[in-house]
Amino acid sequence: MSNHVPESVRWHDDCLELLDQTQLPHHATYEVQTSAESVEAAIRALKVRGAPAIGIAAAYGLVVAMQPYRRAGSERFEQALAAAAERLRHARPTAVNLRWAIDRVVASQRSGNGAERYAAIKAEAEAIHAEDRRMCRAIGIAGRPLITEGCGVLTHCNAGALAVSELGTATAPMYLAHEAGVHFRVYAGETRPLLQGSRLTVWELEQGGIDVTLISDTMVAHMMAQGEIDLVIVGTDRVVRNGDVVNKIGTSMIAIVAKHFGVPFYVACPASTYDPGTPDGRAVVIEERDADEVRTVRGHATAPPNVKVRNPAFDVTPFDFVTAFITNVGLLAPPFEQSLQALTTQPPRA
Amino acid sequence: MSNHVPESVRWHDDCLELLDQTQLPHHATYEVQTSAESVEAAIRALKVRGAPAIGIAAAYGLVVAMQPYRRAGSERFEQALAAAAERLRHARPTAVNLRWAIDRVVASQRSGNGAERYAAIKAEAEAIHAEDRRMCRAIGIAGRPLITEGCGVLTHCNAGALAVSELGTATAPMYLAHEAGVHFRVYAGETRPLLQGSRLTVWELEQGGIDVTLISDTMVAHMMAQGEIDLVIVGTDRVVRNGDVVNKIGTSMIAIVAKHFGVPFYVACPASTYDPGTPDGRAVVIEERDADEVRTVRGHATAPPNVKVRNPAFDVTPFDFVTAFITNVGLLAPPFEQSLQALTTQPPRA
Repeated sequence: MSNHVPESVRWHDDCLELLDQTQLPHHATYEVQTSAESVEAAIRALKVRGAPAIGIAAAYGLVVAMQPYRRAGSERFEQALAAAAERLRHARPTAVNLRWAIDRVVASQRSGNGAERYAAIKAEAEAIHAEDRRMCRAIGIAGRPLITEGCGVLTHCNAGALAVSELGTATAPMYLAHEAGVHFRVYAGETRPLLQGSRLTVWELEQGGIDVTLISDTMVAHMMAQGEIDLVIVGTDRVVRNGDVVNKIGTSMIAIVAKHFGVPFYVACPASTYDPGTPDGRAVVIEERDADEVRTVRGHATAPPNVKVRNPAFDVTPFDFVTAFITNVGLLAPPFEQSLQALTTQPPRA
Repeated sequence: MSNHVPESVRWHDDCLELLDQTQLPHHATYEVQTSAESVEAAIRALKVRGAPAIGIAAAYGLVVAMQPYRRAGSERFEQALAAAAERLRHARPTAVNLRWAIDRVVASQRSGNGAERYAAIKAEAEAIHAEDRRMCRAIGIAGRPLITEGCGVLTHCNAGALAVSELGTATAPMYLAHEAGVHFRVYAGETRPLLQGSRLTVWELEQGGIDVTLISDTMVAHMMAQGEIDLVIVGTDRVVRNGDVVNKIGTSMIAIVAKHFGVPFYVACPASTYDPGTPDGRAVVIEERDADEVRTVRGHATAPPNVKVRNPAFDVTPFDFVTAFITNVGLLAPPFEQSLQALTTQPPRA
């Protein structure tokens, strides 16, 4: 594992720093966070993004918010913690991990004085972070053998260290293969409209010392036709019971093209992302985002100002386009309705 | 046919105006051209683009360059014409239509004085323009029945009026269906890296009164999965003997996805684009363009400055993904090796 893979959330000596991802790839600036207000603002401004990373940032956000209360009595501590939690809980309305992490930290406070309570919530935040790291590493270990000497790997969007912790999910097999001395190429699609591929994935893989090449989203079929891509690894926002995959818009197109060219298509999926309560992808409502994301690029207009736009943020890749899921309990092959059940036998994270 | 479809090359009262396409969609500015130098500069700067439009612009460029020589003797006229032709011929090295149009205008000069010679080259330039218009209209007539009430049409890049003349090629069936009162929707992919879809196609279709919606290139499969796209119509840079299609990068990806969803995939192809001398797409060398086109958007950096990039400008769509070619001699169905021969029986344009 390269030492240079960037972390989105840094915690050391009781000090919280968040990488401002809105400045990437041009500036890698860590901002010290000293209050619930500043962490809330960072989450709202998308300085920290990716559901797991947001959860970790919010957990530590509660810890730093309580640092002034280490000598407070129990009642005052508890009130202040509740207030900070309430503030952070609403930083991003739809982020499940955010509420889950906050609830877990709040529930962890022990009876006792401020110092004892502080120690307990700090330990819980650190545990959340450590669990996420272990989850990523387990995914990396499961997926590492897929990356063989000389191969080309395509990824989409950012399911990397910046969105999660340490190794990321889709990137974890790449980082571990690199650490093991395997030579391989990664192709990152730029991922319009929000360019997470060109702004984030390319930058983090470069930092990690991995041979990465940026392509436009239009180039996927051509690169596969040229034999340059041997496998696809993407992350996911949600995997439902039958194995249908909800992920960043463009994922299903890549899956269809990969199947045409006989290129294996893998989805890195931590247990926390599996949703057995939803039967299939048809049941998932796809969020449509602001039209100006498509009419502009990083604030610069690229289309007539009022042209009609469609802007679905996600798409559904049907399960039969997935070769296997790369998970913290190993590679899960079809039939997924059965194999994915293994994710529910692990200690629940959410 | 709407009166509002923009022309890239305007010619009236012996006056040549070129639309500066680099300013689109924000400003639609026509620049009067009075010399071979200014037309050459406009072609070099991509103010006029699209092989047919470049050819037409260069033909008229010769005409305006010779306006000061209408009272000159034959020898002086001929020398000046040769010099202007030489200058324009090198404005874009790979544009076949450019050299073809210039050679045709030069060859058209009659013996006689400047006035007679001028009249001859002007007539030839106008003939080239008129032929292109007829070619587009014939394609439009062939393709118009494909666009039925309520349907959704996807296109890619710009094979419209801006690249050709009047009706364009891929857009010609749309303009004629619109004129005939058919209600339909067009989806235009933005076409990274150079955004011809968002900057040009969307703008020209809006000007023509057509219901157009911009999507990112990542959204094609999702839109087809939602049933919103009933057919695809794209243009082409070159169709080879077996029917393989060379067109803007991203075209083959759309074709593969369309086949998966059972969506017909049509290619608008004027006779001048058919290349029976090349047996199949494997024989075509794909141009790789400057890396900064992918690292930036309209001059604004969107990726680390030195990241490795692949930037193929075109891809090859295998013939078996093409439902039919929409041509100036009608719809041509498989087997294409036979049906495309019909394009060679027409009077040659190149």
